[in-house]
Amino acid sequence: MERHINEFEVNRGIVEISGKIKKLEAGQGVKSSESQALVAEPEKCSPAGSFDVNSSTADEQVAESFIRQAMEIIVDEAVKKATNVQEKVCEWHSPEQLKKLLDLELRDGGEAESEILQRCRDAIRYSVKTSHPRFFNQLYAGMEPYSMVASFIAEAVKTNLYTYEVAPVFTLMEDAVLRKMIKVIGWEEGGDGIFNPGGSLSNMYAVNLARYRYCPDFKEVGMFSAPRLVILTSQECHYSISKGAALMGIGTKNVYTVPTDERGRMIPSALEEKIMLAKSEGAVPFMVNATAGTTVLGAFDPIDEIADICEKHNLWLHVDACWGGAAIMSKKHKHLLKGIHRVDSVAWNPHKMLMASLQCSAFLVRDKTSLLQHCHSARASYLFQQDKFYDVSYDTGDKSVQCSRKPDAFKFWLMWKALGSRELEQRVDRALAMARYLAEEIKKREGFRLVLEPEYANVCFWYLPPSMRNLPESPELWKKLHTVAPVVKQRMMKKGSMMVGYQPLGEKANFFRMVVISPQVSRQDLDFVLNEIHNLGKDL
Amino acid sequence: MERHINEFEVNRGIVEISGKIKKLEAGQGVKSSESQALVAEPEKCSPAGSFDVNSSTADEQVAESFIRQAMEIIVDEAVKKATNVQEKVCEWHSPEQLKKLLDLELRDGGEAESEILQRCRDAIRYSVKTSHPRFFNQLYAGMEPYSMVASFIAEAVKTNLYTYEVAPVFTLMEDAVLRKMIKVIGWEEGGDGIFNPGGSLSNMYAVNLARYRYCPDFKEVGMFSAPRLVILTSQECHYSISKGAALMGIGTKNVYTVPTDERGRMIPSALEEKIMLAKSEGAVPFMVNATAGTTVLGAFDPIDEIADICEKHNLWLHVDACWGGAAIMSKKHKHLLKGIHRVDSVAWNPHKMLMASLQCSAFLVRDKTSLLQHCHSARASYLFQQDKFYDVSYDTGDKSVQCSRKPDAFKFWLMWKALGSRELEQRVDRALAMARYLAEEIKKREGFRLVLEPEYANVCFWYLPPSMRNLPESPELWKKLHTVAPVVKQRMMKKGSMMVGYQPLGEKANFFRMVVISPQVSRQDLDFVLNEIHNLGKDL
Repeated sequence: MERHINEFEVNRGIVEISGKIKKLEAGQGVKSSESQALVAEPEKCSPAGSFDVNSSTADEQVAESFIRQAMEIIVDEAVKKATNVQEKVCEWHSPEQLKKLLDLELRDGGEAESEILQRCRDAIRYSVKTSHPRFFNQLYAGMEPYSMVASFIAEAVKTNLYTYEVAPVFTLMEDAVLRKMIKVIGWEEGGDGIFNPGGSLSNMYAVNLARYRYCPDFKEVGMFSAPRLVILTSQECHYSISKGAALMGIGTKNVYTVPTDERGRMIPSALEEKIMLAKSEGAVPFMVNATAGTTVLGAFDPIDEIADICEKHNLWLHVDACWGGAAIMSKKHKHLLKGIHRVDSVAWNPHKMLMASLQCSAFLVRDKTSLLQHCHSARASYLFQQDKFYDVSYDTGDKSVQCSRKPDAFKFWLMWKALGSRELEQRVDRALAMARYLAEEIKKREGFRLVLEPEYANVCFWYLPPSMRNLPESPELWKKLHTVAPVVKQRMMKKGSMMVGYQPLGEKANFFRMVVISPQVSRQDLDFVLNEIHNLGKDL
Repeated sequence: MERHINEFEVNRGIVEISGKIKKLEAGQGVKSSESQALVAEPEKCSPAGSFDVNSSTADEQVAESFIRQAMEIIVDEAVKKATNVQEKVCEWHSPEQLKKLLDLELRDGGEAESEILQRCRDAIRYSVKTSHPRFFNQLYAGMEPYSMVASFIAEAVKTNLYTYEVAPVFTLMEDAVLRKMIKVIGWEEGGDGIFNPGGSLSNMYAVNLARYRYCPDFKEVGMFSAPRLVILTSQECHYSISKGAALMGIGTKNVYTVPTDERGRMIPSALEEKIMLAKSEGAVPFMVNATAGTTVLGAFDPIDEIADICEKHNLWLHVDACWGGAAIMSKKHKHLLKGIHRVDSVAWNPHKMLMASLQCSAFLVRDKTSLLQHCHSARASYLFQQDKFYDVSYDTGDKSVQCSRKPDAFKFWLMWKALGSRELEQRVDRALAMARYLAEEIKKREGFRLVLEPEYANVCFWYLPPSMRNLPESPELWKKLHTVAPVVKQRMMKKGSMMVGYQPLGEKANFFRMVVISPQVSRQDLDFVLNEIHNLGKDL
C-alpha cells in the first residue's frame, strides 16, 4: 500500500480515460470485452512526467454532449409527454415484469452512451407521471418549471449547505426564504429556521427543540433519568410524530392522541383533558402538535384555542402545516391558520400545494436565542472552524442533524421570484376553487357521496356502484363498499387513465381522496375523474 | 369558505394564467403594476361551463421554452465553465456584498423570464465550482455526467420513494443497487438497506437498529426506565454519532470515545477497556461504531479485531464507511476494509469518492428479519394500504424515518451501468495513486511537512513559510504555524485559484487536508496546489 507509485502509473489513469473518450466520441461504448484493450495504447501515452492537462477538457466535451442529449430526452419525455393529457399517467407493470424490462443488474463492464440514453428514456417511460393533469394520488402534483430548473441548477452546482464557504449563494437564499416565510407567518420579532429533507424531519426537529427547551441537559445525559415525557397530538396527525417519538427515545406510547370532531379537527377540551391525564399519571407533557391540513381530510386544528391551552400549561406548540401552510399565502383562506403567529414552531412544505420541486420542506421556529443551534450543534472543528475570515454565523450547518444538506430553499426562492407572492396566492385560491367545484359535482351525481364538505383541497368521497345504491345503510353495505375503491384503483392504474388515492379512516370504509393542486388541471379533468370512476366501477 | 364557487370564478384562474402566458410569449414578465389588469379580460374568457383544456398546453409551451433556455445556461456555466481549469474556482464576495449582488428579496409581483434566466446565471456564477479540477475542499468533488443526468431525471420525474405505486422504477433500482452493494460487502446471505439523505442519518439508523435489537420495547416505551446505554466509537469518528446520540435520547455523554493510534485508528485494546469501564459503571454498551476512512486523516479502524471484540461482548458493530467505502470497489485497496463482511451494518456514501451526485448515501444492514421495517414502521393506513393489488413488500417507505424520500439510488445505478464496476475500481485506484504522488511531492519540497503518510485519499500537511523554517521545534513554532493555514485559505479564496480545506486536530496545529477524488484532476493541478500555497504564504 505504501510503496511509491511511479509517474507512469499515475499517468496511466489518464490514458485509460482518454481511451474511453475516443471510443465515446466515435459513438461506441466501452464493452466489457474491450476495456482490457484500452489499458495499453502506448502511442497515446504521454511521456512520463508530462501530464496532459488538456485530457480533462476532452473528457468534458464527451460529458457535455451526453448531457445535452439527455436534456433533450428529459424535455421530450418528462416535460412535454408527461404533462400531455392525451398520454397515460402511468404504464403499469408488476414488479416482476418491470424488472425484466429494466435489466437492473450492475455488471463489471460499462455500457455505450446510446444504451445509457435509452436507459434514461426507459426510466422516464415506466415512471408514474406525477406532472400529468390526471395525477391526484399524493399531496404533490403538476409541473413547476421555475422550481424544476432551480433543482437542476442545484444538482449541477453540487454542493452542501453546511458552510458559507462552499455554498455562499444558497446559504443567503435559504436565509432570505426563511425570513420571508417567518414574516408571512406573522412572527413580528423574527425567528429562525432550516430546510430539511421532508416534513417528517421538520416535525422531529420540533419535538427535539421542545424537549431541549424543557430540559437542555437531555442532550448530554439522555432520557434515562428523565420523567416520562408526553407529546400531545390529534388522532388525525401525520405518522411522523409517532416515528419521531420512537426514534428520539420518547416512545410511541407517550404520544397521547387527542380525539377529533366530525371534521377531523382536534377538540380543544379533549386536549386539556389529556394534558391533565398525563399530569395525573406523573408524566410530563411538554409539547402539543397541531395539524394544519391533515393528510386525509385536510382538516385544520383550531390553533388559537390550542395556543390558549399551551400558554396556560407552558407547553411548546408546534404546527405541522406541511400540507396546509400554503393557505397562509391566500388572503381568502389564511383564516384556516388563525393564531399561527402565536405558536413556537411550524413545519411547512412548499413542495406540496405551492409545487416547489421535491423536496422543499421548511422548519421554522419563533425562538430568537439560537435554540436550533444549541440543540443540534456538535461544533466539528474540521468544518466549523472559528478562525475563518468571514462571519461564521453564516455557517448554518450546525443547526442541522445532517451534515450534507441540499440547497432546497433555492427551489422555492427562484419560483417565488418568478411568480411573486400574488401568483402563489392565485395558485392556492384556484386549487381550492377547483376542489369546491369537484365537491359540488359530487353532490350532484348519483352514486357519489362526500365524506365531508371540504375545508381545503382534499375532496373525500365514496363511489357506490349501481348494485349498492339501493341497499339499506348497514354494516353489510359498508363492508361491500370497502372493497370498491381498491378495485377501481387497480383498474385505473392498469388502464393508466388517472391516479387517485384511497384509504380507510377510523371506522370509515375505503374512500377516494382527490387532491387538486396543479394549475394545469382543468374542470374537464375533474369531470373526467368522476366519469372514469363510474366507468371503472359500475359493474361492481 | 363554504359558499358555492360559480363556474366563472373557477374559470378565472385559467384566464389569469393564460394572460401571463401571452405576456411571457411576448418576452415580457408580469410586473406588479400589470397583474391587476390581467384579471378581467372578458374576450379571452371561455363561456361558463366550457373549460378550455388547451390552455394547459399553452402553459407547457412556455415552460418548455424556459426549461430549454435554462438548460443551455446550465451546460454553459455549470458544466463547461465550472470545470475549466482556466476559470476561477470561486468568485469570493462577503455575505454583505453578495446579498447586494443577488437581490434576494421576495416580492408581491413576479419577474420576467429574461430576469429569471439572469438569476439562474448569477446563482451559478457566484456559487463555488465544486466540479473544478482545483476544488479539494470537501469529500466530494468533480463532475460526473451520468449521475448528474440521473439527478436531473429524478427531479423532472418528481416522485417519492415510499410506494411502488408512485415510484415503480426507482423502487426497483434502489433494490438492485442495495443488493449489489451488499454483495460487494460480502454478506453472502444477503441483507437489507435504504438510501438516506446523508451519511449522518445512516449512522443514526445504525444506532436506532442496534438499540432496537437490544430491546424492541424502547420503540414503544422510550428510554425512561431503560438502563444507561453506551455507544463506543473512536475519538476520530464523525460528529454524527454524537448528534445522533443527542437526538435519540441517549445523550452525548454516553458516547464513549476510544483512543486512536498515531495514524488515527481505533486501538482495539482500548475499546475493550472502555467496554469494561461502561459495564463497571452499571451502564449497557450496546454498539460499536468503527470508522472506515475518518474525515480528516482518512484512517481505517481495524474492523476484524473490533469484530472479535463485538462478538465476544455481543455488541452491534456498525461501520461508518461513508468516505472509505469506495475502497471496497478496488482489488488493490479493499484490504483497508478487511472484516467488513462480519459487521452488522454499514453506512456508505457513493456521493463521495465514487462521485455520485449529492446526495447518495446508503445504509446497509446484514439482518434478514426485517429489523429495518420493524424498527421504523408506523403502518400509515393512507399510504401503506394492505389491500393493494400488488405485492406490498415493494412499498419500502415504512423502513424509513422519513415520509417523502428522494430516489437517490438511481444516481448511482445509472452511473454504475455506464461505467461498470471496473471503471469504478479505476476511479478509486487513480485517486489513491494521485494522493500518493502528492504525498511524495510534499516530502521532496522544502517547507512542506506531511502530518502522516496517507493511507487513503486524504493528504494532510503543514506549510511552513521561510520565516518559520529555521525555528526550533517548540510550542512557539506550532502556535505561529497554527495561524498560517487560515491566512493562506483566505488568500486562495479571494484570488479564486483553488480551494483546499484546513483544520486543527487534537493537539495538532492547523494543517491542510487535500482530498483527491476527481479523474479530471491532473498531476499539474497537484503541483499547482503546492506552488500556490507557497506563493500565497511565503511572506508569513
